[in-house]
Amino acid sequence: MNLKVGLIRVLTTEDRDFLDKHGKILQGLFPNLEIESRCIPDQPEGIHDDETEKLALPKILSLAKEFEEKGKDAVFISCAADPGVIEARKILRIPVIGAGSSCASVALSLGNKIGVLGITETAPAAMVEILGKRLVKSVKPKEVDTTLDLNTAQGKKNALIAAKDLKDSGCDVIALGCTGMTTIDIRKDIEEQVGIKVVDAVKAAGLILEYLTL
Amino acid sequence: MNLKVGLIRVLTTEDRDFLDKHGKILQGLFPNLEIESRCIPDQPEGIHDDETEKLALPKILSLAKEFEEKGKDAVFISCAADPGVIEARKILRIPVIGAGSSCASVALSLGNKIGVLGITETAPAAMVEILGKRLVKSVKPKEVDTTLDLNTAQGKKNALIAAKDLKDSGCDVIALGCTGMTTIDIRKDIEEQVGIKVVDAVKAAGLILEYLTL
Repeated sequence: MNLKVGLIRVLTTEDRDFLDKHGKILQGLFPNLEIESRCIPDQPEGIHDDETEKLALPKILSLAKEFEEKGKDAVFISCAADPGVIEARKILRIPVIGAGSSCASVALSLGNKIGVLGITETAPAAMVEILGKRLVKSVKPKEVDTTLDLNTAQGKKNALIAAKDLKDSGCDVIALGCTGMTTIDIRKDIEEQVGIKVVDAVKAAGLILEYLTL
Repeated sequence: MNLKVGLIRVLTTEDRDFLDKHGKILQGLFPNLEIESRCIPDQPEGIHDDETEKLALPKILSLAKEFEEKGKDAVFISCAADPGVIEARKILRIPVIGAGSSCASVALSLGNKIGVLGITETAPAAMVEILGKRLVKSVKPKEVDTTLDLNTAQGKKNALIAAKDLKDSGCDVIALGCTGMTTIDIRKDIEEQVGIKVVDAVKAAGLILEYLTL
């Protein structure tokens, strides 16, 4: 069965390619998903602190509600911080999937000791809550503060060093704590070069959406 | 990419159809999985208490190791109690997936308040640990103590009553705490008749195995 998914990007963009990026990746992997991507208005810098998250919340909920009213089967909030996921579940009848909770959950199925590799010092709260005692350590690559920084040779090198640090700390799985890491497909580089299983947040969410089609 | 999976049934059987049941369901849903099913020796009644679990553990680990040596890409222990999953991860290099941890994990991606419907009074410890604070309640249907009991009209009716109890207790997702519930596909009946999202343990594990093929 096909699943009509409303995908929410939590930053404002006029760039159609950028807006559709996560949806395109998912449709390539999961042909049963029909994805329409939309973004929240008036937040070109997205969510990057408590204040911008607070500002975004009603916009996310309004867009989620709109998707439900348009007949979507599920809503996917494509951000590892899961902004609005818990709140949206309280007001929508259709399933609401978050990139952060999906990533943390899939990691829990794959290993006992989870490390989070993100672009902030601490992992997103939504991931920390789900990982519980199995969260061993959270790290971010040196000199990487945005996903753009990962796109440089030095950024990628530092991400691999941070991943190795997680492995050396006893982790058996790495959960990626930022959906921007999907764009550069850093998962494969880490798996091949560091030799540890890596969970990509967008792909993990796709997997959970796929469950709804079974 | 195809994934060669060694599937472990934690009870002894000579019945090829029964042995292959979970593998067949998974291959029907996930064509990328190539599954070989085997069972542990000398435990025709499977695992049903601490003593039988202790007896089974070395047999499970030995079979898992054998699968790895034969070139399998992953091992799947098809029991919601996850017997040997944590231990096998310590001695194998390939991923080890358990039905219980997969089921609990997928449930965490779908909802905030999880109920477990199984055939024992308390949910399997492996599921309880992963669900953490999100586990609201565990129940079993009245007069159902084995999966065979579910196969009767009364058994199915009591399972639906138990599922409704979980919904009435505030759960937004039900995780099935027994792989035997897969065989009778009780998931669909509950979703349709009680109106709550249900996670099937074997299908959830298939989803996690599918992640390894992406």
